[in-house]
Amino acid sequence: MPQGLFIVLDGPDGCGKSTQAALLVDRLKAAGRTVVHLREPGGTPAGEKIRGILLDPAVTLGTAAETFLFMAARAELAPVIRDAVGRGGDVVCERWISSTIAYQGVAGGFGAENVAALGKHAIGALTPAILILLDLPPEEGLARVRRGLDRMEQKGIAYHRKVREGYLEARSMFPRAALVDASRQPDQVAAEIGSLVEALL
Amino acid sequence: MPQGLFIVLDGPDGCGKSTQAALLVDRLKAAGRTVVHLREPGGTPAGEKIRGILLDPAVTLGTAAETFLFMAARAELAPVIRDAVGRGGDVVCERWISSTIAYQGVAGGFGAENVAALGKHAIGALTPAILILLDLPPEEGLARVRRGLDRMEQKGIAYHRKVREGYLEARSMFPRAALVDASRQPDQVAAEIGSLVEALL
Repeated sequence: MPQGLFIVLDGPDGCGKSTQAALLVDRLKAAGRTVVHLREPGGTPAGEKIRGILLDPAVTLGTAAETFLFMAARAELAPVIRDAVGRGGDVVCERWISSTIAYQGVAGGFGAENVAALGKHAIGALTPAILILLDLPPEEGLARVRRGLDRMEQKGIAYHRKVREGYLEARSMFPRAALVDASRQPDQVAAEIGSLVEALL
Repeated sequence: MPQGLFIVLDGPDGCGKSTQAALLVDRLKAAGRTVVHLREPGGTPAGEKIRGILLDPAVTLGTAAETFLFMAARAELAPVIRDAVGRGGDVVCERWISSTIAYQGVAGGFGAENVAALGKHAIGALTPAILILLDLPPEEGLARVRRGLDRMEQKGIAYHRKVREGYLEARSMFPRAALVDASRQPDQVAAEIGSLVEALL
């Protein structure tokens, strides 16, 4: 049985990851494929509990602790992805180590290479068939976040610029990655993602 | 103001860490010192939540995820220790990275050097004035654990031997460490620990 595809959709808050992931899952299923839709952090019993800590507004966390928590959740998720892909299913995952590189590594100052070094212990050689980065001008990401997500920390434009820079750095660390302009209409974005993935089938 | 002492008491389950830590805290307080008694994982809001995941019998965790969770809790605890010591107080801490080296690194197969590498990101250069390792023949540790701790995983003698080997490896990784025979009566063990610590005052 041929292996399935492990596809990562990543990008800043407000870039449309969830919408695009759902559209991609529908597209793959319509083509007769078996698809697992995952969202980081989470997807395992331990991962969901770790997600609870990371999203708890009553808990303050330093960048190192955040990085380790994301890695712990990812270490549990990696075998789930390997199993699904090994059984011939596709995995569409929102966020991956690219998020930790962008947020904790570059914007948070932990260091992109340090995140990658920890990642080797968490995920081994597991790497997506393609990393699709939904790119957005920081001003637009900031506006979308402020508009839509009350719980989100109200960080300034300088922070959002660093996150974008971090995603661009993450892109260079993956064997296959594509930057997709997420400032367009969702159907235009979905069409480009669909083409990228179909080229792999 | 002179710095306080950061003292770690570590050793396998059933070695008497909590008893000895309490006795040492009493002894330091009786000498007029300010003492903070900490227990890993925990000691911070995030650390206590992480402890909850690590001790939850309903959650299964791989060795890598365990290692990252201990490191996340430790990254939050390190500034608490630095602050206390910097204000001239002593810190007596049950368990430290030596536990992760022994359990996850050596017994769990993650690798002692890998644990130490992660530790640099979690705790930086923070290291105890002395690491006191309470040593016990594996057979005795196993008997004490089976007798006293229902929730503890019933691991075999081979596992306990590896943990002990791991503690001996951890010992060599600390600038100042002492191996204390914990198979004796608690007052004898306490007297030796007291002498070790008084030599540092």
